[in-house]
Amino acid sequence: MMPDIKDRVEKIFSLIKGDVDYIFSIKRSSPNPTFSYITGLTYGLFEGSLALIKRDGSINLITSGLDKIEDNYIEVFVIKNQRDFKEVTRNLTKDCSSIGFDGRYTTFSDYKMMKRLVRKKRFHDVSKELLLSRLKKDDYEINMIRKACRISDKIFEELIEDLKEGIKEKELALKIEILAKSLGGDDLSFKSIVAFGKNSAIPHHVSGNKKLKRNEIVLLDFGVKYRGYVSDMTRSFVYGKADNTVREMFEVVSTAQNIGRDMIKEGVKFEDVHKEIYNFIEKSKFKGKFIHSSGHTIGLEVHDGFSLVNGVKERFSNGVTFTIEPGIYLKSVGGIRIEDDFVFLNGRVRKLTHAPTFLEI
Amino acid sequence: MMPDIKDRVEKIFSLIKGDVDYIFSIKRSSPNPTFSYITGLTYGLFEGSLALIKRDGSINLITSGLDKIEDNYIEVFVIKNQRDFKEVTRNLTKDCSSIGFDGRYTTFSDYKMMKRLVRKKRFHDVSKELLLSRLKKDDYEINMIRKACRISDKIFEELIEDLKEGIKEKELALKIEILAKSLGGDDLSFKSIVAFGKNSAIPHHVSGNKKLKRNEIVLLDFGVKYRGYVSDMTRSFVYGKADNTVREMFEVVSTAQNIGRDMIKEGVKFEDVHKEIYNFIEKSKFKGKFIHSSGHTIGLEVHDGFSLVNGVKERFSNGVTFTIEPGIYLKSVGGIRIEDDFVFLNGRVRKLTHAPTFLEI
Repeated sequence: MMPDIKDRVEKIFSLIKGDVDYIFSIKRSSPNPTFSYITGLTYGLFEGSLALIKRDGSINLITSGLDKIEDNYIEVFVIKNQRDFKEVTRNLTKDCSSIGFDGRYTTFSDYKMMKRLVRKKRFHDVSKELLLSRLKKDDYEINMIRKACRISDKIFEELIEDLKEGIKEKELALKIEILAKSLGGDDLSFKSIVAFGKNSAIPHHVSGNKKLKRNEIVLLDFGVKYRGYVSDMTRSFVYGKADNTVREMFEVVSTAQNIGRDMIKEGVKFEDVHKEIYNFIEKSKFKGKFIHSSGHTIGLEVHDGFSLVNGVKERFSNGVTFTIEPGIYLKSVGGIRIEDDFVFLNGRVRKLTHAPTFLEI
Repeated sequence: MMPDIKDRVEKIFSLIKGDVDYIFSIKRSSPNPTFSYITGLTYGLFEGSLALIKRDGSINLITSGLDKIEDNYIEVFVIKNQRDFKEVTRNLTKDCSSIGFDGRYTTFSDYKMMKRLVRKKRFHDVSKELLLSRLKKDDYEINMIRKACRISDKIFEELIEDLKEGIKEKELALKIEILAKSLGGDDLSFKSIVAFGKNSAIPHHVSGNKKLKRNEIVLLDFGVKYRGYVSDMTRSFVYGKADNTVREMFEVVSTAQNIGRDMIKEGVKFEDVHKEIYNFIEKSKFKGKFIHSSGHTIGLEVHDGFSLVNGVKERFSNGVTFTIEPGIYLKSVGGIRIEDDFVFLNGRVRKLTHAPTFLEI
């Protein structure tokens, strides 16, 4: 299965009002989802490469030749040095009168460089349009996310077999990584969070040398990348017996997730899902202890543009892939967060992650 | 051992000519070495956080509170939402008349946001000064790099025990990762390159399902991160018997590396080392087959600002950490690249990677 890039390019330009002819994206050492999206290149480094997509659907790539390119829909220009780079870029943008770019993934330096290189063109930050074009995933993308989720499920299944007293957070985090790769994932989608006991009260805890003790909370938040697309799942449970507080936290969080899921229909606003989840937790005895968004879209990025949080007016529609992840954090006890991945497809919410959710193990 | 951040901040401002009072850096989802450098925070995510360093040595951090901060030299401002963020940022920059930032790691969007937030201040791109301040490493940094190199050595030692006919590139790449973490590394410094046979002719080969056969080239290019600092090492050898071509490639590359190393003295220009290495290979029978730079500085980034390549006028001086990595690539045969890490210290070059270099195994 291959992504339909021509279709994608058409979708992007259809969202742009105004006279943008070309869009450029420059890949540096960090991941650049816009570069991946407009070229379909979800492998390789492509450091220093410039992608140029045109309204007519053509895709040009100016690159060093250090990476292999398998896709024949891309016209490749191999350059040897910066002088070459400048010349080819100038030539390829000759006919263009107005050029778009993603302000979120274009550095200030690259913007300045391009301004100098392609003088007298109008520059437009089309980051909003690029993000919006990524909101509704096509079949290829949903499939890749589905595969990433399936790998997450398998990781969880094998991981809980490895739980034992005395195991370190770090060791478990490493197992996630090993499983991710040996089960067919290309990479983790982010540094896994493995938190035991009170550490679980820190949402972005850095896994360390803490050893697992009986009756402690275990919080596992991880995801994998498959062909550039991510999964992102959290499970929290007690290794042993849960006390009453943790049991109540778990029940509130789990119910909150269901409440969120159940209210999602075509056209529902992202922020409204958060309000519902937030208000539910606020009305429980854990008022004030839910301190982040209720979820976010997933795709080429773990946070793929839009969160379920106040102020986000985007709406659910066909092809939106997202997480729902309510959590409650008590410094003296720990944290409980449950996160699953979903797709809104043909009028209903389908769950993509299927790892079991339980309070005690 | 702790980094001396006050000292670092002083060094940065001393390199900036002109009237910059403050420097800001915003952390997004990707690694931001400037953010890490000016705060000393080489752990955690700090997504959406803004660091502000001032000429008087003080360091402010505006952050969501999702990450734990262990360092007490940082004044932390926990904010709840974007409105908070804006208000705190405006307040903290009230007295400042001119503000610096790193154009290479500041997105166009963040630049625009800051322009709107701290109106009427002068903005200066101080990316060059920030890069320069990172060129000479202090004792803490050299120590971290040394530790990262030691882990690389150990990985290599264990890795060659695992070589066997039929092993896949991907499997070996995974072993590197497992070893990196179990030997104390925090992460890989980049996606490892494991290339067998002709695949080794692609400098940035993506490790795949190719199985190792006898008498094929094995090229291993990998590095680890230790407390944010990296190592970067390449070994190439034949699994079995090398033919004459590969033997000659190996000899030319290894001699080229020594030639580079031997000419480095206080004040030698980076580009001159490349010229010497390049000319040596051009004069061999492998003319035209050395297609990249001869090395680069290492530190918080694998390519830490400066390469050994034409046009780079920086000079070797105390505390510079770098790689030397000549290579020869023949499409029909494969590639041989040898890369080691070095520090220029007290007037001489010291090797930091000690894994053995051999032609056959």
